[in-house]
Amino acid sequence: MSEPLTLGVAGLGTVGMGLIQLLSAHAPRLEKLLGRQVVVTGVSARSRDKARGEGFGTARWFDDPVALAKDASNTVFVELIGGEDGPAKAAIEAALHARKHVVTANKALLAKHGIALARLAEAQGVSLNFEAAVAGGIPIIKMLREALAANRVRRVYGILNGTCNFILTKMTDENRAFGDALREAQELGFAEADPSFDIGGFDAAHKLSLLICLAFGTTVAFDAIHVEGIEGITTADIEAATELGYCVKLLGVAAQTEHGIEARVSPVLVAEESALAEVSGVTNCVGIDGDFAGNLLLVGPGAGAKPTASAVASDIVDIARGLVMPPFIRPTAVLEPARPADLASRLGNYYVRLSVYDRPGAMAAIMKRMSDETVSLESIVQKKPGPVHPGQAAEPPPGAGEAAVNVILITHDTTEAAMRKALKAIEDDGQVKGRPQMIRIEDL
Amino acid sequence: MSEPLTLGVAGLGTVGMGLIQLLSAHAPRLEKLLGRQVVVTGVSARSRDKARGEGFGTARWFDDPVALAKDASNTVFVELIGGEDGPAKAAIEAALHARKHVVTANKALLAKHGIALARLAEAQGVSLNFEAAVAGGIPIIKMLREALAANRVRRVYGILNGTCNFILTKMTDENRAFGDALREAQELGFAEADPSFDIGGFDAAHKLSLLICLAFGTTVAFDAIHVEGIEGITTADIEAATELGYCVKLLGVAAQTEHGIEARVSPVLVAEESALAEVSGVTNCVGIDGDFAGNLLLVGPGAGAKPTASAVASDIVDIARGLVMPPFIRPTAVLEPARPADLASRLGNYYVRLSVYDRPGAMAAIMKRMSDETVSLESIVQKKPGPVHPGQAAEPPPGAGEAAVNVILITHDTTEAAMRKALKAIEDDGQVKGRPQMIRIEDL
Repeated sequence: MSEPLTLGVAGLGTVGMGLIQLLSAHAPRLEKLLGRQVVVTGVSARSRDKARGEGFGTARWFDDPVALAKDASNTVFVELIGGEDGPAKAAIEAALHARKHVVTANKALLAKHGIALARLAEAQGVSLNFEAAVAGGIPIIKMLREALAANRVRRVYGILNGTCNFILTKMTDENRAFGDALREAQELGFAEADPSFDIGGFDAAHKLSLLICLAFGTTVAFDAIHVEGIEGITTADIEAATELGYCVKLLGVAAQTEHGIEARVSPVLVAEESALAEVSGVTNCVGIDGDFAGNLLLVGPGAGAKPTASAVASDIVDIARGLVMPPFIRPTAVLEPARPADLASRLGNYYVRLSVYDRPGAMAAIMKRMSDETVSLESIVQKKPGPVHPGQAAEPPPGAGEAAVNVILITHDTTEAAMRKALKAIEDDGQVKGRPQMIRIEDL
Repeated sequence: MSEPLTLGVAGLGTVGMGLIQLLSAHAPRLEKLLGRQVVVTGVSARSRDKARGEGFGTARWFDDPVALAKDASNTVFVELIGGEDGPAKAAIEAALHARKHVVTANKALLAKHGIALARLAEAQGVSLNFEAAVAGGIPIIKMLREALAANRVRRVYGILNGTCNFILTKMTDENRAFGDALREAQELGFAEADPSFDIGGFDAAHKLSLLICLAFGTTVAFDAIHVEGIEGITTADIEAATELGYCVKLLGVAAQTEHGIEARVSPVLVAEESALAEVSGVTNCVGIDGDFAGNLLLVGPGAGAKPTASAVASDIVDIARGLVMPPFIRPTAVLEPARPADLASRLGNYYVRLSVYDRPGAMAAIMKRMSDETVSLESIVQKKPGPVHPGQAAEPPPGAGEAAVNVILITHDTTEAAMRKALKAIEDDGQVKGRPQMIRIEDL
């Protein structure tokens, strides 16, 4: 029996309390598995009241997470405070300087300071593990670091934000308007009071930025990711997609292309029979395409106290077993800057929804603009103004001026540059009301 | 830069050649990742002709795999010979006795001798890794050993045999008869000339037996698994399942129940909107239900040279990184015998297909037998004799005697014991032609 593995846990929110519960519930299991005990010897949180009750054993209280990170009573520092700077960063740096292994679930911090912290961890010969930072309970970091280490990854993609997927699922399954579905997500605790970080796609982009480093051996390049949120998705889009056999998802995609790394987070249409379409509610999924492993898809809970605690615990188990490797697989010294591909060069199918004024020649003008950019169409559906849904304005709304009808176009393969040009010209022609809606179709 | 990691590779079939190709293609990547080279220093196979061409470098030839396993020129022995005894076993034992790490893809051997070999590996302080033995390119062993180490696993299940899944997919998507789909699988190299090991469910059961050990901390208990194959699935079943919104899959399931471990490989019906229904062709999937991680599903290629080589390579990468743990996670000394649950106590829904003679009172007699065992029904569909499909006899076939019609029953929750009694009584009553078909419905 080896020495116990001693942990300092900073942050006793949902995940922190989940971890305390896990370590307490599975103490005998872990001891049997690892040949050593795993013991929480110190904790820190905003309110001392939390650090009581079952599972805390003889853990000492620290007012200051940095003091906990430096304290000799623990050899592994677990950061569950959150925030991209401030105490979380200070405490992690202190722990690494003290030659401690660090486990964190903090994607925002890693997206901003990941490379600098990884460099420090490598120099100190310790682990910086972050399984819980991406896709909650899905062990995607381990997958990329270890299981697929002997692969050249061609593409990584996923449904990485449970809040958005919950909202889109509600809109699809229950014909709910965006605002209505968002309110329910907030009531259930799946969305923050200020939801812009989630629904704007930024949370998913943080996670994707970490996956890009691991998959392609680059430095973290949050800025290289094209980000669109789901705010603009309407019930008209959801209905049209459903009718055409598609499902709307907020997807993060990063691919190695001849033009560099194409990386984006945006709403996409996936075929209804795609495995991605079955990923509903707050469930996440991550797909990887490796040159030898082929296509792998992992589906599981993307958040929640228990799944996230399970991911944090797996990082601790790896440390207990003595597994130490560079945080981003390769030593930071050999990571290359991400060379972003211009999204304009993307080749694929597109969904377009236009609100076309009911005038002679309007459709002809639109078709001409498409044809000018050699965009050919797979299908055209003109929608009559449909029935009114609860929480949604009738179309056309009374007093909204000239009548317009929804026209849905699905294109054949074309470049994004051509699409943008055609849609700009259509908008400028003044035959459509509002801005054209364009959603990429992904064959995944 | 550390010493190179030296490999002796025995067996140069599909997987062996895939591995040689991978190590050659990714030599610079692996060196960068691991800080050391991975070099094949010796090979052995049935025919020496194979050990030529690209990727073999300066590898020495060995006529005898046991000699290769003992030879001091390699520190890791990779067994890709196959067979549950014979040279594969002798060579692995020789390698372990020589204190070498062993990597194998040999599920049949592990299902039979896994515990004895694990005990030897532990005593020698070396690795016995077998990622490629279950579900090809899907890293399910790593998942159970590492990512879910801090979970109590409640259930593990999967589509573990690509041959069966290919056949069932063909039957479903193309209305093909079993024999016809099997012939195509054989022509495409997805099924052996003698396919009984695959279609009888035994290959899937070997894999499930390994998953049971890893998931539940038991010794290997192949005999504790109830095995049914897909030979008895007819186009009538496939059609009825499709009409009722289900899909037929050969599934391995093992669950912790209050009666012990319920373990079986059998055809099941899963709902069409289940993620399992989307797993088609030779693709495999494995699901795990952990008490903290929740439900995880992994989908990927279940076989093939490249995915299997990727799995073997990940085992080698773990060794290069110095990760050594007991092969079945826990030390063999603490593994407990699997206490199998009697399948009769299974509670669930069932699909039943009866070929009922067209007589007054036949259905009443059947309903009476169901009711006697308190089996209640969710739906009853009586099928007219349908059109003739290619490769399938008309029903009723000319000269087959008294006319009968297919009746499909879906039960509410009931025990398997009650189902079996009711069906036995129905068969004995003589109102049905042939044996009743019973397929479990799984809510996965």
